[in-house]
Order: sequence, then C-alpha cells, then structure tokens
Amino acid sequence: MAKKKPAPAQKNPPARPSSKAARERDQRTLAKLVGLAENVSKSAFAGKEPKIEIPTRTKSNTIWNRKRGILEMGDAAAERELFNLNQAKQFMQTMLHASTIKDLIEADKTSSLRGVFYKAKHTVAGTKENTFDTQDESDPILEDLEVSMGALREELHVFAENRGSMVGNITLVDKGDSIDCRRMGSGGYAIPSIVEPDVIQFAKCEAKFVLHVEKGTVWNRFNEDRFWERNNCILTHGAGQPPRGVRRLLQRFNQELKLPIICVLDCDPWGHYIYSVIKQGSISLAFESSRLAIPEARFLGIRSKDYTECDLPDAVKIDLTDNDIKRANEIRAYPWFADNKQWQKEIDLLLRNGFKMEVESLITKDISYVTEQYVPERLEEEDWLD
Amino acid sequence: MAKKKPAPAQKNPPARPSSKAARERDQRTLAKLVGLAENVSKSAFAGKEPKIEIPTRTKSNTIWNRKRGILEMGDAAAERELFNLNQAKQFMQTMLHASTIKDLIEADKTSSLRGVFYKAKHTVAGTKENTFDTQDESDPILEDLEVSMGALREELHVFAENRGSMVGNITLVDKGDSIDCRRMGSGGYAIPSIVEPDVIQFAKCEAKFVLHVEKGTVWNRFNEDRFWERNNCILTHGAGQPPRGVRRLLQRFNQELKLPIICVLDCDPWGHYIYSVIKQGSISLAFESSRLAIPEARFLGIRSKDYTECDLPDAVKIDLTDNDIKRANEIRAYPWFADNKQWQKEIDLLLRNGFKMEVESLITKDISYVTEQYVPERLEEEDWLD
Repeated sequence: MAKKKPAPAQKNPPARPSSKAARERDQRTLAKLVGLAENVSKSAFAGKEPKIEIPTRTKSNTIWNRKRGILEMGDAAAERELFNLNQAKQFMQTMLHASTIKDLIEADKTSSLRGVFYKAKHTVAGTKENTFDTQDESDPILEDLEVSMGALREELHVFAENRGSMVGNITLVDKGDSIDCRRMGSGGYAIPSIVEPDVIQFAKCEAKFVLHVEKGTVWNRFNEDRFWERNNCILTHGAGQPPRGVRRLLQRFNQELKLPIICVLDCDPWGHYIYSVIKQGSISLAFESSRLAIPEARFLGIRSKDYTECDLPDAVKIDLTDNDIKRANEIRAYPWFADNKQWQKEIDLLLRNGFKMEVESLITKDISYVTEQYVPERLEEEDWLD
Repeated sequence: MAKKKPAPAQKNPPARPSSKAARERDQRTLAKLVGLAENVSKSAFAGKEPKIEIPTRTKSNTIWNRKRGILEMGDAAAERELFNLNQAKQFMQTMLHASTIKDLIEADKTSSLRGVFYKAKHTVAGTKENTFDTQDESDPILEDLEVSMGALREELHVFAENRGSMVGNITLVDKGDSIDCRRMGSGGYAIPSIVEPDVIQFAKCEAKFVLHVEKGTVWNRFNEDRFWERNNCILTHGAGQPPRGVRRLLQRFNQELKLPIICVLDCDPWGHYIYSVIKQGSISLAFESSRLAIPEARFLGIRSKDYTECDLPDAVKIDLTDNDIKRANEIRAYPWFADNKQWQKEIDLLLRNGFKMEVESLITKDISYVTEQYVPERLEEEDWLD
C-alpha cells in the first residue's frame, strides 16, 4: 500500500461566497416559499381549511403554442386540501419538501432529487406510516412545487444528473473559475446540472454555432478531428437524451449568444424524439419549456435520404422494429411535426426505407467522413430540417 | 431563428502532431499486428493452414494471483483455424478487425467499439452472408485481438464510453492542453476514455489521496462543499460502475503518484461489486487487470455498521431483495474477500441487517454530514476496509 496518509480533514469550513445574482434569485424563491407557507398558516389560524393550488401537469393541460414554437402548460389547476382523505398525505409531502427547499436555499447548498427524498423520508411519530415510501412519490411533489411556485427546479436548489461534455471556441466562468473550452484536451469540460446565469457566465466567444451530437463516442470523433477549431463552433453531447443542464446551456447559447444549435443525431425515432425534446420541450415538463426549449434548433442529420445520397453500403441498415414504426407514427403526429412538410417527408422516407441508421454508420465511408465531409457540406448547403 | 450562418467548413485539415511516446507505442502495436499478418501469409504461401492462437478468456482460465492481489489470465489458449467450418468465420472477422486497427493506427485516429463494428460490417461479395451481423459478434473479436497481441484496447486505438468527471489539487496535461483541476467550477473535467501516458501526463500535484465516489450526484455534494480543497485530494466519480478510462486513471494516480484510492460507495452488493472491480479487475477482462486493477484501493463506506454507529433513522433502510442476498453471497466467496476477515464481517452484517443503504441516505443527518463529518472522521481514524 502506498503509505501516504491522507491529511487530517478540516471541519466547519468557511462557506464559499455566492454571487449577488444568486443571492437575489434565492431571495425571490424564498419569498415565494414563505408566501406559500403564510397562506397555509393564515387559513389555519382563521379556522379555515389550509389548501394550495397546483397547476395540472397532464397532456390535456398541455398546449402547443404555435407562435412561440414551444409546449406550454394551460390554466387548469387543482386544489390540494389538508382535510381531504385523498389529499392529506400529498399536502403533508408538499409542505415537507417546501421546508427542505427552504433549508437548502438558506444554507446555500444544492441537493439531488434522491437527496431531497431522503431528507423528507421518515416515519410519522406515533404511527407506522412513512412520509414517503419511494422516490416515485417524491419527484412529482417537487414538480408540483416547481409549477405552483413558477420556479425552475434549479432555482429550488435541486439538481438532476450531470451528463454530457463540451469543448469549443468559448470561455465560460463557472463559479468564478475561468474555463477555456479551447484548451480542454481529449476529455472536455463536464457540463454541470445547474447552469443558471448566476453559476455560469459567458466570457469570450468566437464560435458561430453549436454542434450538438447524441453520444460521447461520436463527440470523441469530432473532438479528435478538432472539428470545433476548424469550423469555429462549440461541440456538445448529452450522452443520449440530454439532461436538463445540457438543454438549458444550449438554450442560453441560442438566446444570449444568438448561436444556431445544430443537432447530429441518429436517423431513428429515438433520435427524432431527442430533437423534439431539445426543440419543443417534453409534455411532462411543459411548464419548463420556456426555460429549456429551443424552437430554432436544427436537425442536420443523419437523414433518411443519406443511404442513397451518401452512397452508403447495406451494412448500415438496421431494420425498424414494430415499436420503431409505432413511435415514428406518434412523433409524426406531434403538432410541430404535423404541419412541417420537411419532417413529414423525412419520417415517410424512414418508414418507406424500413431501416434506421446511426451516426456511427458513416464510418463505413471513412473514419473521418462525418467530420470532414458530411457535416461541413451540409452546413455549407444549409441542408437541415427546421 | 438567429440568422448567423455557420462559417464555411475547412476540409482536409492538418493532422495534430502526436507525441513521441504515442508514436513509439503505436510502432510497437503495429509491429505486433504485422507479425500476426505475416504468420498467416507465411503459412498460406507455404501451403499450410493459416491459424492464430487466442488465449482463452473463461472463468476456468482466470487465476487469482494472491501475491500481486489481482486477477490474471492463465496459459490456456485455443487455435483459430481458417480451414475449420466452425472457426472460419471468426478467423475472417479477426483478420478484418486487425486490418481496421492497422488503418486506425496509421491514420493516428481512434474509434469506438461501435465504429469498429461498422467499419468491418459488410456483405461478403457474391453471397448474402454478412461479415458481422451484430455488435455482439464484434466486441469479443476485438478482445481476442487484445489478448493475443498483449495490447490494451486503448493501444489498439479503440475507446470505450467516456463517463465520470474530476476536480482536485492536480494539473494534468491532456493532448498538450494544461488542465488545472483546481479551477474547474461546478462541472469539472470530463475524464476521457483513453488516459494512457502519451495522452495524459501529470504535471503539478499537491493532492495526498483520491476520493472516488459512485455517482455524479454525490460528487456534486463533495465538489460544492469543496471537499477536495479542504482535504487536499482529487475527487472523481464514474457514474456508477466506472468505465475503463476512470479505472485506468485511478490506477495511474495510485502507481505513478503513489496516491491512496479511497472509495465511497453504496452499502449494497452493487457498491461492493464496483469496489471489487476497481480493486481486482473483472473476470471477463482479467487479461487487463495489471493495467486496470488497484489492489490497494480502500472502501471507506458506506458500511453496514453505520446504521447504528451514525445513529441513522429507519428511513435509510432499503430491504435486501432475494437477488441482493444471492449477489452478496457470491461476492463474499470471491477469493480476495473469502480470506479477508473485515470483508466477511461487513457482508455478514449486511445480511444480518437485512437492508442496504445508499451514500445519499447520510443526508438524513445533515445536508453536508457526509463531507464535513462522516468522511473526514473515517479518514482520520483510518477506518476503512482494505
């Protein structure tokens, strides 16, 4: 064993000062939390039933805002009452999570969904009843708080998984540290889960667009060929369906730096769905679309036509399964695809072809065909789907 | 749409010069590849049957080297013959992959397992027979090449998934870029898949140990509390079972910088298995243990005793499933655990408790209990399992 002993740990360490913007944001969120609690206590002291109003997060209350190009939540809401046998437990759970979030904000700390679940989970004194049994009960309560307070999960100091990384012609400031994404080697900068402006600021950016690819393995090819340097862009991936941090960062690149977001995803219903979520948001999180969706995102490829247009060998074909066909038809019916002729044509051809294709399949032409020919040519021709 | 048009792409870009160490490594690998091919062609021209010898990658050919503390591959090997109906296809597949790897090395590029599969996949001219049908056929052939050539996958220019990130008191050089892991904000440096010395060099390191945690969400807590700064260490996670890049980097930290590797994982058979793989290697990749395993790795927690020792509430208990019990007994029988009294005691108590616990469960004490009390105290007392 290497005999070095770890240095003794320092306890009660000084907190790192948070930025002014962060403190202001937190004060706004705290005011909302306190407002929620005050309404409940006022009702109680007035001898009235405490209740809270929770906007409804169902498909029927999700509206496609054609003009803004995003999914939005409608006006429907339901009351959650304490003196209602069906709602009392959820009422209690909502109060517990609100209290945890207040603690988190006041301590200037963040936690995961799982952490918040554990924080609130206990056996109610004098009973055998748990406040929460599984995380499945806990996550929706947090979403209830997000919608009823009109605050993003990140503003509640709760983070999601961190996945995805980036390199490119930009310098960021992350919690005061300057991150030069031009000098990140083969690994890259790991995109955090919370990328709000008080955590991440944009410093110097020469990049003219963002190329977002689906997988880390494809990202490696683009980084190794230094695509971002040669094409003056930012290169990101989200390890599949991009997590919230990646989506929010892409949206900030688009809105604040006016950078086009160009996606290179697989030619299959899963790739199309990833694009759909990046572009318009997801139904279950429609209330957050205005902070996460990027209606201007473009789909560069892989396209159904590429099998013939790029003269690909039969080896790239992967037969569509019954489930793929079902999903393709569902996606084709999404309102933002339903009246988009390009997308109808794209999915029609996918179904007529009867096979899907992955980005990696372009390696059958040449190891760097995708970075040196396919993407550059399509960019030059502006050949993408909107 | 933001109207900025992406700048036109530059084609045929200059290759980035690789380091002298990388070129020398590649020359050694190429020499092995050419040797393999020459043996085959010599046999053919001499009118003999071409065949290659492939060391056997089975449990029965896996040996526990107690002295070195790692799993190793035994001497058993099988011949793969061209003129054998059962082996001809695999012989052809082995040659195809060897040829792709030669191309990769000569082009100084790397590829994913999936990329190598696509590169080799085609329909054999004049037949309806594919060289490969699925990637399941392709990956084991690559492993055959690794073992028969005695070269790591990374030396064959093939990368695995990249997952996991790090921060801490160290500066690395990654492909010529200096990465100061003390100034990586909330996101961190994304650990690449290939971390061999010709790609990643260690520059300045003050850290006295490495704290490796299981999940990104736990890593966030430690980074937010700046544990690595207060305790002078490097902080890594592997997003679950750490991928090869993370394991190899930890091993290099241990061997080259003599840093103890201290793991904080869940108290369940999955956490124990992750530790076992970090420490001794996995049976399916026993031939790579000497490049990936870290016999000196320590398991700090979570421990079965923590429920009482940390006075945790019942809420942290998650009942063991039948499968957990089965896995715990299997793991207890691994040779490196079988004669380790501490580990026998640990797994005994886990089974007697009848419940498992996650790292996140420590949040029931306090949001930063794990970073400010639990881990620092255990480090100071050197209270861990070897």
